[in-house]
Amino acid sequence: MGATIRDIAEKTGVSITTISQILNGKGSRFSEATRNKVFQTAKDLAYKPNFFAKNMVTNRTNTIGMIVPEVTDPFFSQMVKGAEDYLNAHDYMILLCNSSQDSKREDLYVEELLHRAVDGLIIASPNILASNVFTQLEALHKPYILLDRKRHHREEGNIFIDDYEGGYMATEHLISLGHTNIGIITSDDSFYSVEERLQGYQASLKEHGILGSPAWIMEGDQTMSGGYIASKKLLETADITALFVTNDQMAAGAYRAALELGIAIPDDLSVIGFDDIELAEYMAPTLTTIRQPIYDIGKTAAKYLLKAIQNPNEKMANKKMPLDLIVRESTKKRIVNAE
Amino acid sequence: MGATIRDIAEKTGVSITTISQILNGKGSRFSEATRNKVFQTAKDLAYKPNFFAKNMVTNRTNTIGMIVPEVTDPFFSQMVKGAEDYLNAHDYMILLCNSSQDSKREDLYVEELLHRAVDGLIIASPNILASNVFTQLEALHKPYILLDRKRHHREEGNIFIDDYEGGYMATEHLISLGHTNIGIITSDDSFYSVEERLQGYQASLKEHGILGSPAWIMEGDQTMSGGYIASKKLLETADITALFVTNDQMAAGAYRAALELGIAIPDDLSVIGFDDIELAEYMAPTLTTIRQPIYDIGKTAAKYLLKAIQNPNEKMANKKMPLDLIVRESTKKRIVNAE
Repeated sequence: MGATIRDIAEKTGVSITTISQILNGKGSRFSEATRNKVFQTAKDLAYKPNFFAKNMVTNRTNTIGMIVPEVTDPFFSQMVKGAEDYLNAHDYMILLCNSSQDSKREDLYVEELLHRAVDGLIIASPNILASNVFTQLEALHKPYILLDRKRHHREEGNIFIDDYEGGYMATEHLISLGHTNIGIITSDDSFYSVEERLQGYQASLKEHGILGSPAWIMEGDQTMSGGYIASKKLLETADITALFVTNDQMAAGAYRAALELGIAIPDDLSVIGFDDIELAEYMAPTLTTIRQPIYDIGKTAAKYLLKAIQNPNEKMANKKMPLDLIVRESTKKRIVNAE
Repeated sequence: MGATIRDIAEKTGVSITTISQILNGKGSRFSEATRNKVFQTAKDLAYKPNFFAKNMVTNRTNTIGMIVPEVTDPFFSQMVKGAEDYLNAHDYMILLCNSSQDSKREDLYVEELLHRAVDGLIIASPNILASNVFTQLEALHKPYILLDRKRHHREEGNIFIDDYEGGYMATEHLISLGHTNIGIITSDDSFYSVEERLQGYQASLKEHGILGSPAWIMEGDQTMSGGYIASKKLLETADITALFVTNDQMAAGAYRAALELGIAIPDDLSVIGFDDIELAEYMAPTLTTIRQPIYDIGKTAAKYLLKAIQNPNEKMANKKMPLDLIVRESTKKRIVNAE
């Protein structure tokens, strides 16, 4: 067995309460000499703190675990920021885990966070989580928010956007500008519910009597280079005057593909994105897009979670977050040739 | 006192070892029925796991704490990715903390991570950490890597780039293209060691007999909008033909400022950035920049840390990471008018 606080007390003559406060970083009112003595003795005795002992006093750790699929994606880092700002303002901290979209890693991280006694979890997952993850969460009475596009059927704490509606809105905007031959860049990454955005696109085309074509649809990775590769393939083959790129990062890649092919945006090709990340305003031309309230999604998740921690017996609310069409320079009325 | 594993064993008739494995997510070889019985009983008895008890067996938790100043900055998210890929490949996980550049929050996160028994820490900090943070780290014998631009004087485990050299390289490139009136966008954010990049810029000017001018220097926030505001101010007032923007994110803002002022890049203005984030290749024109091996910095930090965990009595090595000039389309020979 390692040394305990009692051992440090015996050796230093400092009270257990004082030592506990100093070792827990709450000893600023004690003298530098006392603090140094305690730290030095803890070091000499190879003392290891028992986090759980501290935790048992308040039964709260004021930390929240948050799992996201990809921290390098500005979409998720904005979401983290929103959650964090709210939690920090309420004296909570975040332990953040990056699952790299891997469902096994998500399961492991949930376990690790539970072992570390977080007060609750926010899980942004592209996957169906293992059922024992939920059993564990519930066995430990840990409130959690799933940002999962309603992939798990859950009656409470659903915070979501309507991807179908977003895809529909984007396509309606292009059609309203006179475009009929409209391409779409999708992705195999299911997290963004690109599938639903595609369905919204197809519904809009259909409503306007536009037949559409499989040749107008191209799949790519959810990155700038993924958007570039997919757009280049599509623009080389399909006869289109407008393009719906299902996220803004990929749209940056579409811009480069158009540039290399000598296709001018918006004169030859109107482009609309999805998300409204900061970059959208700095692209040339600035990017028309469907804005998701990414920061607010993170913030709302944090808010609902703290409410659930404070009121463990109440059901969490559900909230649909609004989408907005942000018209910038990259979309334009279709020019119909006189000939 | 809460229920223990022993209580679950008595109630279920399952052995303590089996229960422990199931509750620790390592029970996949047991039947679904046994696992459910254990989870259900744990739930009924409101069992809370004692992470420390598990930890005492191996004395390792296989988790690393990592603190970064700003996860929404692609620079740091790439660094996290590099560390994570290495750690995950070695069966370690990361608990990530975002300090928002706040030194108090950094101190708090170090404490929280220590309480949660991480095996080591990677701390990317723009600040001077409180001295008791180091006392704590050392009292607990926790290896740590500081990615702090050598702000703390430490003889081992320094992984760094030479910012002075980077600033010098960028300016030399512009001068080699015939530019003499060269502006610079700096920042008040000390993390990037912009101060040293500025000194490298000044040294290069001086070596070539260029006097320089305070009117060529403008400070801004380390974001796209910060780069935009600072560049706009600078380009409106200073008579320059080249601009060194001390990070790529800000360079995206400089592009917009130039566009609004009718200044063509690279014909009227050569622009060089710093970092080489993915965006640099997708800007129009593509951005010439000084490449930092961001991903490798994170990876090397992880590698050195694991080595220190495995060999607690050896000193950690120091490593200077290389910088490279990446020439793309945004810099060009200065056109001297014949008149």
